[in-house]
Amino acid sequence: MTAFSAPEKTSQPLPPSDSRQRVSQFLKSLQDSICEGLEALDGGSRFQEDTWERAEGGGGRSRVLREGNVLEQGGVNFSEVWGQDLPPSILVQRPEAAGHSFYATGTSLVLHPRNPYVPTVHLNYRYFEAGPVWWFGGGIDLTPYYPFEEDAAHFHRTLKQTCDRHHPEYYPTFKLWCDEYFYLKHRQETRGVGGIFFDYQDAQGILYPIAYPGSQSGTPAAEHSQRVGAIADRTWEDLFAFVQDCGQAFLPAYTPIVERRRGMEYGDRQRHFQLYRRGRYVEFNLVYDRGTIFGLQTNGRTESILMSLPPLVRWEYNYQPEPGTPEAVLYEKFLKPQDWANWQP
Amino acid sequence: MTAFSAPEKTSQPLPPSDSRQRVSQFLKSLQDSICEGLEALDGGSRFQEDTWERAEGGGGRSRVLREGNVLEQGGVNFSEVWGQDLPPSILVQRPEAAGHSFYATGTSLVLHPRNPYVPTVHLNYRYFEAGPVWWFGGGIDLTPYYPFEEDAAHFHRTLKQTCDRHHPEYYPTFKLWCDEYFYLKHRQETRGVGGIFFDYQDAQGILYPIAYPGSQSGTPAAEHSQRVGAIADRTWEDLFAFVQDCGQAFLPAYTPIVERRRGMEYGDRQRHFQLYRRGRYVEFNLVYDRGTIFGLQTNGRTESILMSLPPLVRWEYNYQPEPGTPEAVLYEKFLKPQDWANWQP
Repeated sequence: MTAFSAPEKTSQPLPPSDSRQRVSQFLKSLQDSICEGLEALDGGSRFQEDTWERAEGGGGRSRVLREGNVLEQGGVNFSEVWGQDLPPSILVQRPEAAGHSFYATGTSLVLHPRNPYVPTVHLNYRYFEAGPVWWFGGGIDLTPYYPFEEDAAHFHRTLKQTCDRHHPEYYPTFKLWCDEYFYLKHRQETRGVGGIFFDYQDAQGILYPIAYPGSQSGTPAAEHSQRVGAIADRTWEDLFAFVQDCGQAFLPAYTPIVERRRGMEYGDRQRHFQLYRRGRYVEFNLVYDRGTIFGLQTNGRTESILMSLPPLVRWEYNYQPEPGTPEAVLYEKFLKPQDWANWQP
Repeated sequence: MTAFSAPEKTSQPLPPSDSRQRVSQFLKSLQDSICEGLEALDGGSRFQEDTWERAEGGGGRSRVLREGNVLEQGGVNFSEVWGQDLPPSILVQRPEAAGHSFYATGTSLVLHPRNPYVPTVHLNYRYFEAGPVWWFGGGIDLTPYYPFEEDAAHFHRTLKQTCDRHHPEYYPTFKLWCDEYFYLKHRQETRGVGGIFFDYQDAQGILYPIAYPGSQSGTPAAEHSQRVGAIADRTWEDLFAFVQDCGQAFLPAYTPIVERRRGMEYGDRQRHFQLYRRGRYVEFNLVYDRGTIFGLQTNGRTESILMSLPPLVRWEYNYQPEPGTPEAVLYEKFLKPQDWANWQP
């Protein structure tokens, strides 16, 4: 594999004329199918929906399920917004978009289960158009509290199979990108066992620059970032098909893990640790997450943006897990990047 | 000045040769006296101290009191750090500091009482030197859950008396700055009933630029920001004396409020609301607070920086207080800037 070299700056092909409708239609149906699947899985509560409009253009449907059998809280959002200017944090990465109006649509979810043996999961897929540029982004990642190797392996293998149907470099590349993106530098921890993450994917073939936009230098994944350069010959249709496939992989990636763990007994100790670890989720989303920052910068609907925050959280000054405990195993093994897809018992 | 050194373009008077020792000495003794006062007030728990060193230079003393009679958690930090470069967020405001090593020292505290009738309080005073520039900054603000007008008035009057001993424009100016700085734009709420806040105070007389550094446009206080320009004829000694006086005003400003409210009975409803409102404290500190951002950007000690986060927090999607309830009164009256120093029953 050759080292990455910046692709030639040629104008990329225009998307199909019905690109916005097709993507938003898919993302809405993804929200529907995921909510249906989660209600069937939970068996207790149902999603409540709020639709909302954004003064500057667009709106969304926010759905939240509370106090379910499995989910203490789960939020699944769809949004479609447009306006005059992308925020500076995005224009730095896509200067060609400056001075053009933008269109953005996305579906995202965060699930906070009650049982500490069931991991938290996050998904977000999104699509942007602004003047001469368009791109897809998104990903999915898993955050266990009391982790199981076979769960991490199942999650990653499902994602790898999905990616491999589209390009052999997708999974290894987007897995590394996920490890780096969901890295809490101030804690020197990954958020969980990762998954896949990508941004700014378009027909120019920008896959994973060595210093990708927003890269946090010094994180573990950055050391491995020579893996891949650019893939040319990708069309808008190729990328849309890939993102659709990723979205549809959510239920098969997550629900078998829930089924395996939902009945496990737990006590105050496990609950206490789960609430503490949820604090990391808050720290990541408010300090680093670009979806959250984009939402707050573009005057998005605050309640929908912050629906990802857990229903109950603890902070504890100077907490350290005791060596030899299950809590220590999380830190020692699962909060560092691992090759889960190739895990063997 | 010798013939060999060109005069600095921004030639504010140099601080005294022992400026760093004098300020850090004061800030350490402030930490001591505040901790003593709080232990006497609490009557239950004592502060535990951790001393720490920072690899790039400097260190600190972090003190935390947990599970007290009054305080569910209280943290009081002293730190003194130095290094090669200030972070970009500060260099934008003080470009003269670029290329110079820096020195920064500060004392900060956040107290999270258990009783929802006792307000949370925050204090931070700090001092910077970098090449040709130096400045003082800081402030104090009060965040009630179930608020009392007389408490807000007492707090503000104590601060006003302190400020008025130094300059008649200090209180009105720094009160407005506080209302603007501790404004949660994404919630359209002040953090609480405010107090005073100032930054970049030096002998050049920069008091409160009409668009002060970091100003959040569109917040309520910005509408009143014509109040004052610059005060000249201030020396380093004047400003140090002012900051000392502010620090010493902490116990008289806060402890009478605790004494009045600590015995009030409360139930699940009040506790539930308190935990929910603590979420706003987390949102402010992680999204907006420049002390937190400075600490994380300069590789500070994470546990000390995030000691301000509450021990237990709730988020609730789309919560709105019911009209006519005590919770609604907080939103309607206390989370908007008010002239508390002139309040009359």
